[in-house]
Amino acid sequence: MVGASEKYMSRLFRDGRAMFLAYDQGLEHGPKDFNEKNYDPSYVIDIALRNRFTGLILHKGLAEKYREHYAGKVPLIVKVNGKDNIAKVSPFSPVVCSVDYAVKLGADAVGYTLYVGSPDEARQMEDFREVQERARDYGLPVIGWMYPRGEYVPNDTDPTIVAYGARVGLELGADVLKVKYTGSIDSFRRVIQMAGRARVVCAGGLKTDPKTFMQQTHDILEAGACGVAVGRNVWQSSDPDRIAKALELLIYHHSSVDKAMEVLT
Amino acid sequence: MVGASEKYMSRLFRDGRAMFLAYDQGLEHGPKDFNEKNYDPSYVIDIALRNRFTGLILHKGLAEKYREHYAGKVPLIVKVNGKDNIAKVSPFSPVVCSVDYAVKLGADAVGYTLYVGSPDEARQMEDFREVQERARDYGLPVIGWMYPRGEYVPNDTDPTIVAYGARVGLELGADVLKVKYTGSIDSFRRVIQMAGRARVVCAGGLKTDPKTFMQQTHDILEAGACGVAVGRNVWQSSDPDRIAKALELLIYHHSSVDKAMEVLT
Amino acid sequence: MVGASEKYMSRLFRDGRAMFLAYDQGLEHGPKDFNEKNYDPSYVIDIALRNRFTGLILHKGLAEKYREHYAGKVPLIVKVNGKDNIAKVSPFSPVVCSVDYAVKLGADAVGYTLYVGSPDEARQMEDFREVQERARDYGLPVIGWMYPRGEYVPNDTDPTIVAYGARVGLELGADVLKVKYTGSIDSFRRVIQMAGRARVVCAGGLKTDPKTFMQQTHDILEAGACGVAVGRNVWQSSDPDRIAKALELLIYHHSSVDKAMEVLT
Amino acid sequence: MVGASEKYMSRLFRDGRAMFLAYDQGLEHGPKDFNEKNYDPSYVIDIALRNRFTGLILHKGLAEKYREHYAGKVPLIVKVNGKDNIAKVSPFSPVVCSVDYAVKLGADAVGYTLYVGSPDEARQMEDFREVQERARDYGLPVIGWMYPRGEYVPNDTDPTIVAYGARVGLELGADVLKVKYTGSIDSFRRVIQMAGRARVVCAGGLKTDPKTFMQQTHDILEAGACGVAVGRNVWQSSDPDRIAKALELLIYHHSSVDKAMEVLT
Amino acid sequence: MVGASEKYMSRLFRDGRAMFLAYDQGLEHGPKDFNEKNYDPSYVIDIALRNRFTGLILHKGLAEKYREHYAGKVPLIVKVNGKDNIAKVSPFSPVVCSVDYAVKLGADAVGYTLYVGSPDEARQMEDFREVQERARDYGLPVIGWMYPRGEYVPNDTDPTIVAYGARVGLELGADVLKVKYTGSIDSFRRVIQMAGRARVVCAGGLKTDPKTFMQQTHDILEAGACGVAVGRNVWQSSDPDRIAKALELLIYHHSSVDKAMEVLT
Repeated sequence: MVGASEKYMSRLFRDGRAMFLAYDQGLEHGPKDFNEKNYDPSYVIDIALRNRFTGLILHKGLAEKYREHYAGKVPLIVKVNGKDNIAKVSPFSPVVCSVDYAVKLGADAVGYTLYVGSPDEARQMEDFREVQERARDYGLPVIGWMYPRGEYVPNDTDPTIVAYGARVGLELGADVLKVKYTGSIDSFRRVIQMAGRARVVCAGGLKTDPKTFMQQTHDILEAGACGVAVGRNVWQSSDPDRIAKALELLIYHHSSVDKAMEVLT
Repeated sequence: MVGASEKYMSRLFRDGRAMFLAYDQGLEHGPKDFNEKNYDPSYVIDIALRNRFTGLILHKGLAEKYREHYAGKVPLIVKVNGKDNIAKVSPFSPVVCSVDYAVKLGADAVGYTLYVGSPDEARQMEDFREVQERARDYGLPVIGWMYPRGEYVPNDTDPTIVAYGARVGLELGADVLKVKYTGSIDSFRRVIQMAGRARVVCAGGLKTDPKTFMQQTHDILEAGACGVAVGRNVWQSSDPDRIAKALELLIYHHSSVDKAMEVLT
Repeated sequence: MVGASEKYMSRLFRDGRAMFLAYDQGLEHGPKDFNEKNYDPSYVIDIALRNRFTGLILHKGLAEKYREHYAGKVPLIVKVNGKDNIAKVSPFSPVVCSVDYAVKLGADAVGYTLYVGSPDEARQMEDFREVQERARDYGLPVIGWMYPRGEYVPNDTDPTIVAYGARVGLELGADVLKVKYTGSIDSFRRVIQMAGRARVVCAGGLKTDPKTFMQQTHDILEAGACGVAVGRNVWQSSDPDRIAKALELLIYHHSSVDKAMEVLT
Repeated sequence: MVGASEKYMSRLFRDGRAMFLAYDQGLEHGPKDFNEKNYDPSYVIDIALRNRFTGLILHKGLAEKYREHYAGKVPLIVKVNGKDNIAKVSPFSPVVCSVDYAVKLGADAVGYTLYVGSPDEARQMEDFREVQERARDYGLPVIGWMYPRGEYVPNDTDPTIVAYGARVGLELGADVLKVKYTGSIDSFRRVIQMAGRARVVCAGGLKTDPKTFMQQTHDILEAGACGVAVGRNVWQSSDPDRIAKALELLIYHHSSVDKAMEVLT
Repeated sequence: MVGASEKYMSRLFRDGRAMFLAYDQGLEHGPKDFNEKNYDPSYVIDIALRNRFTGLILHKGLAEKYREHYAGKVPLIVKVNGKDNIAKVSPFSPVVCSVDYAVKLGADAVGYTLYVGSPDEARQMEDFREVQERARDYGLPVIGWMYPRGEYVPNDTDPTIVAYGARVGLELGADVLKVKYTGSIDSFRRVIQMAGRARVVCAGGLKTDPKTFMQQTHDILEAGACGVAVGRNVWQSSDPDRIAKALELLIYHHSSVDKAMEVLT
């Protein structure tokens, strides 16, 4: 098959907009991201189920062990590569779940992080090729975490490098690109341009104050992004549902930031 | 198949508790761990058979050559990777037994050591992926030795790093996690939390005095662990059966440390 | 099958001459090559469709996502390896699209960049072998970007090294060789000689003034090349169609440079 | 199949004792080991045929080209990895003959050298795994040359390290272990202990005076070894048959060193 | 199948003698070896066809593109690995043509260069194993270019190292060994001895004066070689046919050097 199937693509979007709940931080960042509630996958999965997320991003282990909790209730995005952050080595993220196994887990899409510009990028591009082409055998959409990183990337939110990262994702065959925010609508619009027919979601990033986060979400949508892949800004919040509701206003209802903030105050 | 089969999982536990006898030290540490009795696999296997261990951990060679000694009498956990400790190089443990061969040997589970945080961790994660997914084809449980190690891990019993190691095991799809003790109930409880639905057994470690060992076993159970994977503290003991009996009291009968110590004195 | 099939080869040539439109720069160079129009693959594809190009060079992602735009209207050359230019490491271009997938995308030929003389050349030669032989299974022509590069190549347009690069392409089994211009008809004639029965197209390279570009195109044809693989000199032009018409005069009608320049002024 | 088949194992032993003629030195050491007679494989093979050796150790090339000379007359042990000694690099011995091809050559067993403690040991252990498991598919015995070597092994006949090497062989699934002599019966007894149910043969090593060699052979048998794998001490001798006869006395007839020496004087 | 089939072997020899025309220099040395005639494969192939060569050595690309020129008229030896000489890195020659593809090209034998003693020799030995064993599946003879090379080989024509290289070829399963001349009949005789039942051809090497070349050819035959693999000394000659005739006298007619020189003067 060529390209992602409409069947799967349509699940990831609501009226062309996407709102993914990312919960791969247990591997990527470790326990330091968690408090007494959100260390528990059930707690975070429940947030996804109570709100209108169009995708839940999990690594293989959580997808496997918490399956009956979410299966059939929210689209599953299996993150097929990953790493922890202990060793300070050249950025490389190995494949930790085969596409075949992701399919067995019921994945509606697979996610892959490509550390664009890393000295080990060639090996990652080869891995990505295999992931993308195997996903095609099933018609599965491929979401690329296009993350410039490493000694040749002094600033990973520099608009030029983020735009290049997005283009790499388009050229290599990703269907959806997860990128970091570049700081302004204009510079993000350039990122969207470079992404061509690949759709763009913005990473939520570190937990920040709700106003800033809402403004950023508004701006990336204004620039042409189709949504967000958010984690810590939701499940580290004391009231995740409220954040989710505010995001829904911005994303699905095209509300203003002020309107979204009303929910939060 | 997704996840470990109940058939195999149930063999590894008695009333939800596990007591594994580890005898992979011949490869990992070499003859220095052995005295005139315990160098002999038959001697150690007999300890497992005489007591209520729910698993016997062997490398391929011992599993193969001493098969008629233990087969059908105690669940077999084949350790599928391993290394000796001669070369002082970056920690990496190669796969020394395929899952397919472990199945031929009659394995009820496979064990894999992941040196979390090692500079070579990416390669290990790839190996682990293959082991885990192949094990799934048979429904075999996967036990992860989650051992932070290497130049970026100054202290491998630091609660933060042990907890991160446990989380890595959960995220990557291990069913049971073997970790080191963190020194206190509270810090170990955090490890258990991070492990989510993966079960946790504590490594026995270096032979220590029985009282300390019993107290540690009690504490990890109190914290939520489901048992121990013990080697030297049993088969280096002058009376291994007595140690085993004491452990059984703690593990299966939820006895106090004092009660357990009565057996030993 | 041995060699490229005539069916595919004949599509790449018009009266023995070739005019390929290269649009792999989004990956190779990134957004810096693009302006407000040509970042959009549709814009560039339209140039190929409006003019008499005998091949459109795309990476997998563009070939996949813009398929209905060009399919069946211009021969597709899928570039099967590629890299971005962020990391300053030894030149190596990983395979980012399998030949099998290129075939699914409808490729009429595959392109592969070999960094001749690079310290990592051995690995590339191995990759090239696999690409070339798999292409043979389908009868697909293989176009070799024969690009000397790396620390042992002080000047990549030195006639000696360009000629060696072309010979490497012939010896390894490429059908068409894309090389850089050596600066003179005589030195380029030597390149053509070394290429033997492999056909040679000249890379367009950096955008330059039209007169220089037309002269160069004339000279390489005079030396025996069969055409050009041009990108930036066309789609960075303010009037790409005019440049294309001028090239057509030189390439298909064997016109003089003056005649070609008439179109452009 | 699990374990080596009795059919093959029984061929390698006579009354539980083994006497292997090693002739892999052409690759391992090169011409310097040879004189005007023993460079010729036919000469050495004849020694094996005239005497009561239970195995002839050859690399693939000799096994292939001198096949009609020995086939069916003496059990064939194909050495499946090997290296020359020219480059002074970290000890690593690549697989130079697949087990499948060894089987085609008529192998009754395969031999593999593992440089225990070498910085590249992990790669060797992976190779050994594949060799051992593929051998099992045929029921072929696996003979491990357990040779501690490299920068972390200051003395490769130190009893501790030889014992560790033997244990590694047992743990990894070798059936017979070829080790170096540790210098005393007592220390070699420890090696035998560590080898468990794997049988041990002692390497002949450099040619030495017959008395020393006979004493060593006697001692390793006394310690529990089942025989020798000898090369230079036989075929570099001016009277190889006499050495062989003396060895037969010690090995098969449990004679004293004095008795064996009578043959030699 | 074990060993090379007689069908193929017999094609490479005439009365037990071999005369191979080597034309792999386009890859190995590049254009600097060529003049206005011999850059053209047709020119060189014609030399093979007009004279009594028993083999024509080509890389895949030439074998493929000039096939109708030579097929069925002279045995084809496909060189399956190769490299250019631009990068000054540790000698390693990657496989550039699979044995399967060589067979499709109509190969009567395959050639492989092994840089004996190179720091990367292990990888080459693994490649050679695969080439040799795959060739066996077809019964194809394997010709080993046994070339000691690299930082541990100060002098690659030193008789000791050439002899060791030849032995490596025998031990690894090559059928014919191509080696460099050691400078004297006696030292070359030792090389022949070490080669055992593998046949030896001498490399022609750099173009030298005809007298010297004829003397060398005579001497290697005298020492027991079965022929030559010659390139530059033939096709760089102003009268290649005459050189070929002189070689035929020496090789097939066992003529004296004086007799051979008569043809040349």
